[in-house]
This record gives sequence, structure tokens and C-alpha cells, in this order.
Amino acid sequence: MHPTSIDSAGKPHSYNWRDKTGWRLQLTTKHQLTPVPFTQVHLDDAFWGPRMETNCTVTIPAEYRMLYETGRINSFDLKWKPGDPNPPHIFWDATVGKWIEAASYSLATRPDSALDAQLDWLASKISHAQQPDGYLNTHFQQVEPEKRWTNLRDCHELYCAGHLIEASVAHYQATGKRALLDVLCRYADLIDATFGISDGKKRGYCGHEEIELALIKLYHAVGNQQYLKQAQHFIDERGREPNYFDSEARARGEDPADFWAHTYAYMQAHIPVRQQTEVTGHAVRAMYLYCALADLANELEDEGLFTQCERLWEDACLRRMYITGGIGASMTNEGFTQPYDLPDETAYAETCAAVGFAFWNHRMLQFEGDRRYADVIERILYNGALSGVSLDGRTFFYVNPLASDGHHHRKGWYDVACCPTNIARLLASIGNYVYSQSAADAWIHLYAQGSGSLQIGESQVILQQITRYPWDGDVRVIVQVDKPALFKLHLRLPGWCQSFSLSINDHTEPDLPITRGYIVIEREWRSGDAVTLKMDMPVQYMQANPNVSAMRGRLAMQRGPVVYCLEGCDHPGLQLDQVRLRTDAAMSDIFHPEFHPELLGGVVVLHATGTITEPVRWDGNLYQSMQIPSPMVNLTAIPYYAWDNRAPGEMRVWFHTG
Amino acid sequence: MHPTSIDSAGKPHSYNWRDKTGWRLQLTTKHQLTPVPFTQVHLDDAFWGPRMETNCTVTIPAEYRMLYETGRINSFDLKWKPGDPNPPHIFWDATVGKWIEAASYSLATRPDSALDAQLDWLASKISHAQQPDGYLNTHFQQVEPEKRWTNLRDCHELYCAGHLIEASVAHYQATGKRALLDVLCRYADLIDATFGISDGKKRGYCGHEEIELALIKLYHAVGNQQYLKQAQHFIDERGREPNYFDSEARARGEDPADFWAHTYAYMQAHIPVRQQTEVTGHAVRAMYLYCALADLANELEDEGLFTQCERLWEDACLRRMYITGGIGASMTNEGFTQPYDLPDETAYAETCAAVGFAFWNHRMLQFEGDRRYADVIERILYNGALSGVSLDGRTFFYVNPLASDGHHHRKGWYDVACCPTNIARLLASIGNYVYSQSAADAWIHLYAQGSGSLQIGESQVILQQITRYPWDGDVRVIVQVDKPALFKLHLRLPGWCQSFSLSINDHTEPDLPITRGYIVIEREWRSGDAVTLKMDMPVQYMQANPNVSAMRGRLAMQRGPVVYCLEGCDHPGLQLDQVRLRTDAAMSDIFHPEFHPELLGGVVVLHATGTITEPVRWDGNLYQSMQIPSPMVNLTAIPYYAWDNRAPGEMRVWFHTG
Repeated sequence: MHPTSIDSAGKPHSYNWRDKTGWRLQLTTKHQLTPVPFTQVHLDDAFWGPRMETNCTVTIPAEYRMLYETGRINSFDLKWKPGDPNPPHIFWDATVGKWIEAASYSLATRPDSALDAQLDWLASKISHAQQPDGYLNTHFQQVEPEKRWTNLRDCHELYCAGHLIEASVAHYQATGKRALLDVLCRYADLIDATFGISDGKKRGYCGHEEIELALIKLYHAVGNQQYLKQAQHFIDERGREPNYFDSEARARGEDPADFWAHTYAYMQAHIPVRQQTEVTGHAVRAMYLYCALADLANELEDEGLFTQCERLWEDACLRRMYITGGIGASMTNEGFTQPYDLPDETAYAETCAAVGFAFWNHRMLQFEGDRRYADVIERILYNGALSGVSLDGRTFFYVNPLASDGHHHRKGWYDVACCPTNIARLLASIGNYVYSQSAADAWIHLYAQGSGSLQIGESQVILQQITRYPWDGDVRVIVQVDKPALFKLHLRLPGWCQSFSLSINDHTEPDLPITRGYIVIEREWRSGDAVTLKMDMPVQYMQANPNVSAMRGRLAMQRGPVVYCLEGCDHPGLQLDQVRLRTDAAMSDIFHPEFHPELLGGVVVLHATGTITEPVRWDGNLYQSMQIPSPMVNLTAIPYYAWDNRAPGEMRVWFHTG
Repeated sequence: MHPTSIDSAGKPHSYNWRDKTGWRLQLTTKHQLTPVPFTQVHLDDAFWGPRMETNCTVTIPAEYRMLYETGRINSFDLKWKPGDPNPPHIFWDATVGKWIEAASYSLATRPDSALDAQLDWLASKISHAQQPDGYLNTHFQQVEPEKRWTNLRDCHELYCAGHLIEASVAHYQATGKRALLDVLCRYADLIDATFGISDGKKRGYCGHEEIELALIKLYHAVGNQQYLKQAQHFIDERGREPNYFDSEARARGEDPADFWAHTYAYMQAHIPVRQQTEVTGHAVRAMYLYCALADLANELEDEGLFTQCERLWEDACLRRMYITGGIGASMTNEGFTQPYDLPDETAYAETCAAVGFAFWNHRMLQFEGDRRYADVIERILYNGALSGVSLDGRTFFYVNPLASDGHHHRKGWYDVACCPTNIARLLASIGNYVYSQSAADAWIHLYAQGSGSLQIGESQVILQQITRYPWDGDVRVIVQVDKPALFKLHLRLPGWCQSFSLSINDHTEPDLPITRGYIVIEREWRSGDAVTLKMDMPVQYMQANPNVSAMRGRLAMQRGPVVYCLEGCDHPGLQLDQVRLRTDAAMSDIFHPEFHPELLGGVVVLHATGTITEPVRWDGNLYQSMQIPSPMVNLTAIPYYAWDNRAPGEMRVWFHTG
């Protein structure tokens, strides 16, 4: 078996996103791939397995306690009266919805009668809160009932409805119980009756997108086309002139110019959605909108919408994404700024935005099976999303900077508690991202030990992965079929991979075609057939495009899909901003990766040497001379996602060299 | 003779500007030093000598031709009529004034009967243009006579007066002829009668400072205290509420809110001058104002004003100065932005601002003889000011960036032609910056071969310098006195100097006191006494304060006072932004300085090795891996001031390392 250099086999490293000549074999705007749902995927690896277990046994129960203690659960009892403390907030229902979704996913893979009963009880509580006309919003029903649908711009009313809809679909799919689903269908029917272009209907749409993707999900669950049309209506109306938020503000007696966020670009409503080709504004809102756009492109087989999604994706991924997969650089708008504005220490990179970014990429991936989307999903999952929750599952980052002076730490809860439940629903359904299927194809997007049950045409196919990924690049895929089956197996060649070898039943296959970044093996598969993919996984120095001014001359460490950082507690006495990475030797002489089973849940640590600039007393001076050569220091890099799980201290991802 | 480490002798390298304990021996707000005028200083070195010669023989005549050909000279004939082309512009008179000043300085040191006659002729022309009441402004007299003194904010009226006053003083001092001086005294008298706080007078002041320092200069020339008081009035009124520019705009029927620059901070008129402790706005205006503040602090012995000047100076020099001595980072306002905002490629760093910055530092230096001011003067003169003119004296930079993609070049003239004449008047009087004197002290601030005639108490003292500075750090000072004379000789130990030795008449003196950064030698001097100062002048890597985000992880090359750059024409085939400086060896192994007498007027070139990052095809990608170790390349660094004198191409001062 000899390694096949990727440069001769498909040049994925110099893969030019903009020049897809020869890549797109069939121009399609319909999903060619169907994701294999997480319920058909079992992960028994040492990486995701324990994280999922912690998510189900620690995080989801802990979040419920916080929801309960902060009044969000019993808010559905509608017992709050004016003058009472702790009025139900405008986005409480959304948080409960996301928790139900996460808990349902947990229940779908781990039978748990107590959780089942708890969800029934909560569904019943929600059901009783619903008004006769179908309306359901604990804030507006109790705090300001006269203001229903009067401030779509600011009040998250349809956003809350969307999250409850997603919750009801998840609960239905996990349990087959329609109780909550029926409640939310009634609410969706009211929304359908309330919003539209015909006389007497409101032409509004929500300031915070979510209802659009939720209605499409509901359409899939119950088959009512009206929900799809309503989602399309919200998208088509968004940003149209005269702007609905202007007229709505005037109807409230407010001057639209007083809008606190100053621009409707904040919520992607500054111009009609179909004219938007640059990502803008609040990152979570943007992601939820783009998810709905991708869904709609698929449903309508709308090539214009698909092309727009591609342009938005390129703007996001090629100009606005942190190396961790985090997005939304600015705290000011919790969102996007200028292209290539990616500062490390002040990075916002909200956990929810990373989660939404994964959702969007997952939808884009299913159109054609193009590796670029899976590469981004992998980058998000192993880095900027996973950092959102502590190893013990009890604390959460809302903001995920790429450098810290030691004062940034996870918390057990937030008043605006969107992130904890978002990361919980992602982790509970992480299996969704591993496989896709079609009538004659199987795709492996992510490598993780475990198995997936696929339906390929008439065949039931089980793909079993044996691997220590992401700590090792060797993956053995064993195929189980009920009878010999002809299909194409697509194995993703990750963007980070520079050389690999592949064998089938221990025969090296050096000349397999690579299509859209996937090695394609077409054969009649028999049970026990084994594919061994060996991907070299050296430590890599990553550099950012020169347009990223904040990263000019700096390097980050990455191994496989995992981005590394230095943390203060591994480097007592060092100031991390004075550490410089060596470039004067071969990587294998500078870095020595080693698996530490006891550390941080089991991680590959990078032992390395770097240099350190002599501590300089600046005394306010502007320029000083620098002494060289700089002394050498020992460094210990840990995965970025695992930082802030030990003693508080500095953290850095990007370093100067020298 | 053994080298004395500066660290044991005065720690000038870690000199803390903010903690002056032990430095200020006498608290004074009166100049303790008197500059030795350039007429008493002769430079016959290979550095300044040829530049001054070119300035007098090429630059000043060429500038006159441009002034003549563009109509600025004959504008004083007052023959322009409405409808004629080329109306006299509001700042034409200022340019003519600066040219007269430069030409007068030239005449003062180089007898030239033709130039003498030319200046007389021009003085006569200006004299004839003056109105009976003393008013003199070719724009307002011809183009809009009804608008005299109605838009001080925008129209440079008093600014032009100031430059004509400086011209008249220079002409008087150079020739003893009062013709032009008398004209400008009459104009100053009119200004005095027009502006003030008593009834019927205007409380205005000029949008572009200059008149203030000019009136103080005129006061010194003719002794009329009223001019000093008028300068003080302009400073005291500036920025007071109600703001004069507001009421003036309303009187013109304009809304003050429509002011094109949006803020009076642009011209240092947003708050009263004495409340200003942060440098702000248009850099040239700021420098001229701060010159006047320093002058006024000296005249009034005003400690508050002196302290304010120190705070402004620290803000400018410790937070807003390029390593070249350039100031004013932004093109938008030709001026100051946020502290530490010092981008290289988009640096504005106007030549005029560097010249004005030198003027201000020269005034500050005379208070106590503190080296920090002379260090900045040296940084400006050898770098960011000198870059303003080509080696042949015929073309000029208005803007002095620290990096160029190859499209920034000097021009022979500018429509707004402030810079060419400003650099000409600086170079014609460069001798001003070398020496100071007092009743019992002599100071050498700058090292340059030549001599200065000083008056120390009763003694006539000639200090002769023999040196190849700035290419070599050895300086021999030979003292000539008419009779043995007891005085203190202060020799500046430059901020760049890290080790030195000093001998007197070839006897090493290792333990001389160092006061405010000057080695102090007190003795009875006899003719022929020789002091030899040997300053080691290795190549130094300079780094910027970590607050300068644009320079983080980057280094600049400096040797002695000279900042170096790489230029494209010395590095065919290299892209300079991919060059990295080595930090893995001793400086003496990386750099080999060599004097090239035929190159760029004779310069020390730094031959060096660096590394080069492999050219990367980005194809729009955001992150890519980087291969190490990087290949080595040969580099040739030239002085920054000398760039853009050969083939057009890239230029860079700051480099990443690795």
C-alpha cells in the first residue's frame, strides 16, 4: 500500500470553490442525497459517544432544571398577573421549544420512560395554554395580550412559534405522539390565516427568522402544503418596499428611524431576500433564514434560489468564517461586519450561530454531495460549536473568542438562554451529519466509530466504521448487506488531508475517481467487504487569506479537523502573546502529537517547541529594538474545543512566527 | 578604551518618558537653551551637504518656476478679473510665502545676487498688492473681495497671512531689508485691529493654524508686543463656546451642521485649546498650533501650557507616530485617528506634517535639552521628512506610506502645493537643529560633519564635528576657543544607541554623567581639545508597541537613526509581502551593512538573508496550510528616505518574521 498524493488525485487542497468546471456533473437544485437520520446512526466512538451521553444525562436534565427554576416551564400555566415578578419574556417559549427538541432527540435514541412522561406532561401543559383560536405565546397571552402581532420586528413572536413547531415535530418523530404536533398545527393554521397578501391579512414576517424553516419541517411531518406556501410567503415578503417594519412601527406610534439596531440589514430585511447575496446582520437570524432558503430551493427546485444560497455560502465561508467554523465577528450586532474582519480576541462567534451554520451546511450538502459543505460542518462540529459546552456538560459559552486574556469562561445559564439548548439539540442529533443515501449511492461525510443503517434502493446496508478519528486518520469501513448490492460508496476526502491511501479487502486501489471531493467506489458489495482509508494526519500550520488583516503573518495549529490552542495553565509563567511558532525546521521536528487518555476526556496533545520574545518593558514607548535569537520554549497545544475546562487562564489560537 | 554599556550609564533604552524623577533638575517653562541659527552652522558632510546644495540649486529654482507658471507669482499683480481662467486660489499666497522663506534661507548661507534681486522684485510686487488699509490676500482681493474675513473656517485667510509674515521675517533676517517686513507689519497691524474681544472686533481665528506662530516670530523680529498678544488671543479664543465658526456660518446663511469636515476637532477648535490634551484632527494644523503653544509657554513662562505641550507631545510621539517620524495616519482628515492606529500601506504621513512635527520638537527641545525631543527630530529628518523629496530635488511626496504596491510615486508639483515648499524651507535651514547654546553650556543635538559657531557667555566657541554619521557612529568633536573657556559640553546619546565609549584627547572617560540623555563634559576647554564619541551602530530590529495592531508580530530594520526598507527593484521576482525576516540567528550573522558610494547618493545598504513564504494560490480560499521550513532569500535593504528614486516597484518597511 503506497500513499496516494492528493495533488495527483484531485487537488482538493487547491480546490477552487469559484471554478467548479468539471465538478458539477449534473446541474440540480433538488437534493440528490437524503441524510440518514440520527436514529439510524449509532456512534460508539470515544469522541462523540461520551459527549452525547453527557448531553443526554447531564446537559438536558440540567437545562430543564434551569428552565423550571427560571419560570419558563410554568409560564405555560398562564398564572402570571400584572404586578407579579418575573414576567414571561418574549423569547422564553423558544428556549422551551429547543429543549423539547433536544429531549425528544435524546428519547429517540435512548429509551427513558421518565423523560417520555416528562415530555408528555410538558406537551399537555403547552396544549392547555393554547387559546381557542390557536394562538400560543406565554409572553403576549399574559403580559401584553393587546399587543399580539403588533411588533414582529422586535418581539420574536413567530420565532417562538417556529421553535415550538420544531419541538412538536421532533416529539412526534421520536414518540409517534401527535399531541404537541396537533397543537402546533392549530397554531400554524392561525398563522396561515393571519399572514398573507390577501385582504385583511398582515404582510408581516418575523424580525428573527425561524418560522420559515419550522413551517417547512412541519410540512414534511404532516404533508400540509399550506405550511410550505406560508414559509415561502414569509421569505418572499421579507425586505420588500414599503418595508413592513416601517409601517408596523408607525402603527405603534413610533418613528421607524428610532429602530434600535438602526438598519434592517440586522435581520436581513433591508432588501428583498432574493436580492441578498452578501451575508449580513445578526448571524443566528441569517443562518436560520439561509436554512429556509436552502429548504425552499430544494422544495421548489428553484435554481435561482440555489445559486443565491451558493453565493451567500461563499460569502460566509470564504470571507467571514473563523478557522473554528465560528461566524459573526462583532458583539455590536451579534453578527457580520466587513468581509475578512476576523479579529481573534474580540470574536463574537456565538454558539448558536455555529449551530445554525452547521444546519445550513447540512442542507447544502444534500443537493450534490459537494465536500466543501461537509468540510465546513466538520470544522464547526469539532471546534466552534463543541467549544460551546464544557466537557462535563454543565456550562456553556455564548461567545467563542479565539483568544482570551483569561477572563472568558463558560456559565451554567444565561438570561438570553439560546445557546445551551441549541448545542444540546445539535449534540443529541449529531448522527444526522455522518451519512447520506440515495437510490444507488451511500455517502460517508464524517468519520466516527459506529454504524449507520442505510436504505440504498432495495437494499438494507449497514456501514460500520472502525476508527479513532479525529485522533487518527485510519478508517476501516465494513459493509453489511442482506444480499450482494451494487452501489457507489462515496468516502469524503477531507479538505485537511494532503495524502492518503485506500484499499478494498486489503487490495490497494490507487486510481479511484474522486468526485466533488469524495472517493467513489462502485462495486457489488458483499457482507464483510472492508474499505480501509488511511489518511496521513500530520500537524499543519494554517494561515489565513492575506485579506484577513488580523491574521497576517500568523499561524494556527491544526491536526486533522481539530484546531488547537495554547492554554495558560499548560504554560505557567509564559505570556501567550509573546509565544511565537517556529518555522525553521520540519513540522515533524517541531511537533510531537501524543494521545493523553486521562486529559480533557482523552485528547491528542501537541508537544512542541516555540520561541518566546523576551518580555519587554514598554513603559509606554512606541518603538523599541528587539533582541534575537529568541529563546526556545516548550509548548503544549490542546484542542480548541477543550479550552477553559481546567484552571482559568489565557488562551490563544493564532500566533506570530519567528 | 572600553565600551560603556548604556544600561549602566543611564538606561536610555528603557528611558521612561512618563517617570521623569531625577531627570528634571530645574522645573522651568522658559527656554534654557538657545538654538544656534543655521547661519552659524556649516555642514560639509556627505549626507546633508549635497541635499542642501540640491535644495538651493535645483529644488528652490524649480519650485519658483512652478509658482510662476501656475500663476501664483503674478497673482500679486491683481490683474485677474471675474471670468478670467485660473482664479487665484485661497492658499496660493501661503505657497509663495513658504518659497520666499526657503529662498531667503538659501540666500542667507549662499550669496547669490540673482536670487537676491529676484526676492527684492517679488517683495516689491507683493508690496504693491497691499491695500491701503494693509490687507493683502490675492484670492479675496480679486475673486471675492466682498467676502473678506467672512469664512475663517475654510478659507485660509489668516493662514496665508502667517506664511507671508514668516517669509518677511526670513527675508529680513537673511538680507537686513525691511521692505517685505514692513508690508507684513502693516498687515499684522490690520489683523490686530480686526480681531480681538473689544467691541467691533471679530472674535474669530483661522481654521488652519499658522498665524499664531507667525505673529510670535514677527514679535521677535520687530519687538512689537502687540503681535505676541494677538497670537495669544487667537489661541485663547480657539474652540471657545459659542463656537465662532458656528456663528460665522450662520452669518453666511449656512447651517453650521453642514460643515464638510463634520467636526471642529479637524482644526483643533472643538474645545478650548487649553483643554486639549489629545492630538486631534488635521496633522499640519495641529503641528502649527502646538508650535505656537510651545512658543507661548516660553514667552509667558506658563507652566500649565508647557505641561499641556508635554502631554500633547506624549500623545503624538508615544501613540501616533510612525517609525519614520511621520504623523497623521488617515487620508480622510489628513490627520490623526485613534491612538495606535498606524497602518503602513494606507499611512498618510503628509510631508508637511513631518516638517511641522520637527518644528514643534525643536521648540520643545529648547526648554530643558531633553533628548527625547532630539530623538524625534532625528527620526523625522532622516526618514519621514527626507522621503518627501527625491534625491535629484525635483519631485515630492505629499503622502509618505510605509508600504507601497508600486503605484505611489513622487510628483513635480501638486495643485495643493504645500509640501514642496515646506520641505525646501526645512532643508534650507537644517543647520538649526544641530546645536544649542546658553551662558555656560553647549549642546550637540545632531551629529553631522561640519562646524557651528556658538556664543557661550563671553566666549566664541567653534565646535567642529568630524564624522561619517549617519553611516557610522564615530564622532570626533574638536573645540576651538578664542581663549580657554569653562563650559559644559552636552553630547546627545541617541535613543538608538545601546553601547558607546567616549574619550577626551584620547583618554577614555567611562564615568561621565548623563543628564536628560546627554553626556555632560564640564571642563575648561582649550583650542584643539578633542572629544571622541564612538557609538556602536549595529543593525537593529525594531518592534512596535503591542497596542499597534497593524504591526503585531512585525519588525522593521533600523541602523543608527536610519529606517530601512526593501524595494522591489532590488528583489526581482519576489513579492515583498511574502518576505519574512529571520530571527533564528545573531543580527551580525543575518545582516552585512556595506557603504555603496555610487548608489542613491551614497548609502549604507544592508545585505541580509530572510525567508520567503512559498507563493500560495489562494483562489479565494480563507484558510490554507503552510509548508515549512521556508526557503532562504537574499535581501538588500536601502534607507527608507531613498525609496522611489530608481525603477518603480513595491516597497515595505515592516515585515513578519519566520
